[in-house]
Amino acid sequence: MTSQKYKITLAYDGTDFGGWAKQPNAPSIQEHLEEALRTLTGKQTVVTGSGRTDAGVHARAQIAHFESSKAVTLRSLNALLPQTIRITSLEKAPKDFHARFSAKRKTYHYSLNLTQVTDPFTSKYTTHFPYPLDLSLMKEALPYFIGTHDFTSFANVGGSAKEMTKRLYRLDLIPTSQGIRLEFEGNGFLYKMVRNIVGTLLDIAQGKIPISELESIFSARDRKKSGRAAPPEGLTLHAVEYSEEAHAAPLTELAAQTSSVSALSQG
Amino acid sequence: MTSQKYKITLAYDGTDFGGWAKQPNAPSIQEHLEEALRTLTGKQTVVTGSGRTDAGVHARAQIAHFESSKAVTLRSLNALLPQTIRITSLEKAPKDFHARFSAKRKTYHYSLNLTQVTDPFTSKYTTHFPYPLDLSLMKEALPYFIGTHDFTSFANVGGSAKEMTKRLYRLDLIPTSQGIRLEFEGNGFLYKMVRNIVGTLLDIAQGKIPISELESIFSARDRKKSGRAAPPEGLTLHAVEYSEEAHAAPLTELAAQTSSVSALSQG
Repeated sequence: MTSQKYKITLAYDGTDFGGWAKQPNAPSIQEHLEEALRTLTGKQTVVTGSGRTDAGVHARAQIAHFESSKAVTLRSLNALLPQTIRITSLEKAPKDFHARFSAKRKTYHYSLNLTQVTDPFTSKYTTHFPYPLDLSLMKEALPYFIGTHDFTSFANVGGSAKEMTKRLYRLDLIPTSQGIRLEFEGNGFLYKMVRNIVGTLLDIAQGKIPISELESIFSARDRKKSGRAAPPEGLTLHAVEYSEEAHAAPLTELAAQTSSVSALSQG
Repeated sequence: MTSQKYKITLAYDGTDFGGWAKQPNAPSIQEHLEEALRTLTGKQTVVTGSGRTDAGVHARAQIAHFESSKAVTLRSLNALLPQTIRITSLEKAPKDFHARFSAKRKTYHYSLNLTQVTDPFTSKYTTHFPYPLDLSLMKEALPYFIGTHDFTSFANVGGSAKEMTKRLYRLDLIPTSQGIRLEFEGNGFLYKMVRNIVGTLLDIAQGKIPISELESIFSARDRKKSGRAAPPEGLTLHAVEYSEEAHAAPLTELAAQTSSVSALSQG
């Protein structure tokens, strides 16, 4: 039997994992998926993600692909995964689809709780930062990051990227009930780039880095010149897009069922 | 030293607790609070809530009171509580304030995920119901519950209420990204009343109970006539209100800090 390429969309709570990638000393999302597929198909199967997420980082709609000569269903795969990893969509993909190399655009969200008290409902997905911040300074700094830049100063060593110039389409500061969410949309992100930019923005909002230094930080091409890295828990890979096809909706295949609910609200 | 009455607002993830009330075989919110106060003040202290929440039920803004002859701060109390229980506001209250008897109005939210797949980020706070539902039937049934009714048919035996007639001000069906949220606002709720109404509404939307039977279900004054009880995880005590003072905002004392964020969004 010929093998079929599958594309999956998955949501995960990264709290208890060592990250996306298989590794010796911690459970990973990739390992759980490959183990589930081995149980289901009886064969060792490689699962390729759109990119790695670090330990403690979450995904609302990570994309991955694999090949199987045995039919695989969303339900059977989810039954073999922990509740903290859920496949929300499974579809047959063309042979040339590649979760990483075909990706055109990614969106990351970084959530900050700026109040004095953590929130039991969101504390695993939000970074608590109960210190004084001048958010108008942060907002003033955002345009410096948007556009095409060499982001070497915001990348940790250890990434696989050879091209350090990336294009950031959008970097928005969205107020939330307990703080802010920073939304990053770009054609690609370097190793720890989002967390390093968030950390730098926090340093700017605390008055530790003047906005006037941003240009020289970029041109130094040196990670040591930018701010601290923000912690992983506030970071979520929100969406990955491929060519014309948008993958922003995390539960695309379930849209039909919930659309009746939305329709109702207008009725 | 004379004793001071304190009023606290608290949020909790009810997943790992046997409910609000102290009980022999499970950890409870009340017990955690009383233990923390005993550690802090050196004295046995009784904490009185606005009402009980059952095992697995959550609170966004439960209200409670206690008396202490030693000064108590929000920070010191939170430091002695698990992260799943957070006091979001602590204020001195007049002597005659009573968390239960002074309460005028309560709001409960019941969240349902109607898609095929659970969501790792919200599954602890949402009931998964992946079965066909006719939501237009549910919406048609809502007005039967609104207003002043004898709710005996929707109350489990074992509650402390003597007055079975309650007034429901509002029962709204709000579409969400993965399903619906039912919002209940009333002057008081009988034992398991919200979960029994939600279960009945699900039976109606599944065609198991015709809307034409609702009037006779109410007049029977018999719990056996209404539908099943919906499970606890989807239920959250959202707000408790006292006289003119509204307590809808869970983080009232932190509002000053976050209001600068909201102001920014308009700038």
